[in-house]
Amino acid sequence: MAISNIRYGEGVTKEIGMDLQNLGARRVCLMTDKNLSQLPPVNAVLNSLAKYGINFQMYDNVRVEPTDQSFLDAITFAKKGEFDAYVAVGGGSVIDTCKAANLYASSPTSDFLDYVNAPIGKGKPVTVPLKPLIAVPTTAGTGSETTGVAIFDFKELKVKTGIASRVIKPTLGIIDPLHTLSMPERIVANSGFDVLCHALESYTALPYNMRSPCPLNPIDRPAYQGSNPISDVWALHALRIVAKYLKRAIRNPEDREARANMHLASAFAGIGFGNAGVHLCHGMSYPISGLVKTYKPKDYNVDHSLVPHGLSVVLTSPAVFAFTAQICPERHLEAAEILGADICTARIKDAGFILADTLRKFLFDLNVDDGLAAIGYSKADIPALVKGTLPQERVTKLSPRPQTEDDLSALFEASMKLY
Amino acid sequence: MAISNIRYGEGVTKEIGMDLQNLGARRVCLMTDKNLSQLPPVNAVLNSLAKYGINFQMYDNVRVEPTDQSFLDAITFAKKGEFDAYVAVGGGSVIDTCKAANLYASSPTSDFLDYVNAPIGKGKPVTVPLKPLIAVPTTAGTGSETTGVAIFDFKELKVKTGIASRVIKPTLGIIDPLHTLSMPERIVANSGFDVLCHALESYTALPYNMRSPCPLNPIDRPAYQGSNPISDVWALHALRIVAKYLKRAIRNPEDREARANMHLASAFAGIGFGNAGVHLCHGMSYPISGLVKTYKPKDYNVDHSLVPHGLSVVLTSPAVFAFTAQICPERHLEAAEILGADICTARIKDAGFILADTLRKFLFDLNVDDGLAAIGYSKADIPALVKGTLPQERVTKLSPRPQTEDDLSALFEASMKLY
Repeated sequence: MAISNIRYGEGVTKEIGMDLQNLGARRVCLMTDKNLSQLPPVNAVLNSLAKYGINFQMYDNVRVEPTDQSFLDAITFAKKGEFDAYVAVGGGSVIDTCKAANLYASSPTSDFLDYVNAPIGKGKPVTVPLKPLIAVPTTAGTGSETTGVAIFDFKELKVKTGIASRVIKPTLGIIDPLHTLSMPERIVANSGFDVLCHALESYTALPYNMRSPCPLNPIDRPAYQGSNPISDVWALHALRIVAKYLKRAIRNPEDREARANMHLASAFAGIGFGNAGVHLCHGMSYPISGLVKTYKPKDYNVDHSLVPHGLSVVLTSPAVFAFTAQICPERHLEAAEILGADICTARIKDAGFILADTLRKFLFDLNVDDGLAAIGYSKADIPALVKGTLPQERVTKLSPRPQTEDDLSALFEASMKLY
Repeated sequence: MAISNIRYGEGVTKEIGMDLQNLGARRVCLMTDKNLSQLPPVNAVLNSLAKYGINFQMYDNVRVEPTDQSFLDAITFAKKGEFDAYVAVGGGSVIDTCKAANLYASSPTSDFLDYVNAPIGKGKPVTVPLKPLIAVPTTAGTGSETTGVAIFDFKELKVKTGIASRVIKPTLGIIDPLHTLSMPERIVANSGFDVLCHALESYTALPYNMRSPCPLNPIDRPAYQGSNPISDVWALHALRIVAKYLKRAIRNPEDREARANMHLASAFAGIGFGNAGVHLCHGMSYPISGLVKTYKPKDYNVDHSLVPHGLSVVLTSPAVFAFTAQICPERHLEAAEILGADICTARIKDAGFILADTLRKFLFDLNVDDGLAAIGYSKADIPALVKGTLPQERVTKLSPRPQTEDDLSALFEASMKLY
């Protein structure tokens, strides 16, 4: 169980210049994206860097839902800059890109595939020391400030994959709920769905003592180690916050209490899944994002089609939990109850359907697109979606219930229409 | 918020030789105490060190409830050994002694008082790098494997004090519930009371955003930063486990579920108070331990009088929470409810009395000595007890309610007899 340091509070971003001074940083790389570079979170960081006289270069070319190419661009920038510290201001895309830039700039002779998860890459363990990275999340979803994972879209293979190592985890996460006040409605919703699924998947993941293989040497064990008594605490706590605050945070940008709580929930769920792992919703989401056709979501100011990560994850959640519940029905029922289901008279064998119905109702109330069909997929795409899920075994093997290709087909089919 | 790595599971101690290999350790210092050196936890470590060919020296002279002199003895051993890693197998006494040995051996020109908490010592910040320390707790109480605190008895001043720095926090805590099976009944009880008070005190501590002074630079802020939304999660979760399992763990050494859960609760509460801090029960406990007369507790195989830390902490808890409740009565009521009180018809202004009564009943059921009088103190000792509490302002200032010397006198007096 490994957990990064986090600092929480309205306005704590203004301290980042001091943190960099305390680290002795002389050449800082500030990463963000083009939208954010005009917004208050980046301004708050810039003001603090100026106040404390921190020498920095800004890279604002991060791509929302990054690709291998956009990672490589950031890596080139990082290599050239010879930085001694990194600051990432943004959502998961920015923080993940910054992790990759720090990693490859610290290991300049490595081939890009060296650290990419097997079987797509070589999945080599990271043994080089990295520079300090301070992450300032501006969405309430990814939890990337607390995890050792960086996800990108491998364009050639049309599939999302990533890099996973405790070593790339940020040194410090600065969780400043003021930043979430700039988030448009759909970004709050979709990033909140990511929190929801992080919590549900890590709570229902294969238990840590049933994972196989279980490498003898602790250093060879994956960061995603299965559900365990510590990640359970974080998953349930995050789920309770989602149940209480997500709808309020979406509805009203001025609801500081709701947005602040979702910002914390994102980090809490991150600590949970960063140690326990996620499973089918995430495993199946990567081809859903990777194979995107023409879908352009509301509120995302980008020039390419994309399925936001949180949306690609949540659309299969009713089907997934109906499928997995038979292995640990009590946990599924408990989750349904936290999300508002009345389980007084529920039968344990109905746990999966109850959780699925609860999720459908939750998504309907929040105006979520009606399944994969609504974002451009049809039955004909299912073989490609299944094919794109197969290489995600790093996460799919953490499903409490093993699944065949036919099972995956059925899950995609059941997710075409939700309501 | 800073949290160490922990590994949990029955039998995980056998991996410690691999951990030391992974750290590249060539000269390991193994610290424990004379009792433990004959018991299964130390054997498990020795077997693993032998299996992986780890070169080590053992120091088993740790004193239960350590003193400045016993710290200095361990420091001398550590300096002489020029170790590159430390392993502490034991309760808080062993782990705290090992932290001090690592610190001063890594900072060999420092005077002992340099790092001791002000106002007793100089409270200098630690800026030297330390060697890795792996802590293997054998009690379920201290949580020392997760904290940056080392407590000792300053004999000359007859007062307990300590060293507090994030830097001395163990690199890894190995939480192997098998070790708790060797604990005698009263050690389970007293260390469990420490968990109980860690949880109650950190949950009711002054909120992090009301602490003063609030140093501008994050590096100058204390490890004990006041209650906050993250430490609250740990505190409440630990309290729920104490409520469910402590009595069972004391009653039956074979109740593996109860003992394993208390072992985890100890680490959970440690993460909570290690970031939020403790307040009056702990602040007042130091003179209660430091001024011990002839009390020798059952089940502790030692040649000197002592008041076990957990006992010295819990005996004032009914008086303390009756005193502090007026500032945050909801939290006191919530704690009482978790500990079994029926609060359906409770009035908020009675929160303190309800929690105090709940604690008294809990302690009575567990055969705890009837207050400070039962361990050898009388009214005549109160001025000395108050005098010994005053230098503990590092923790007493985290009490939600400020307190005068008269208040402290009244709290000691109210703790003379509990039932």
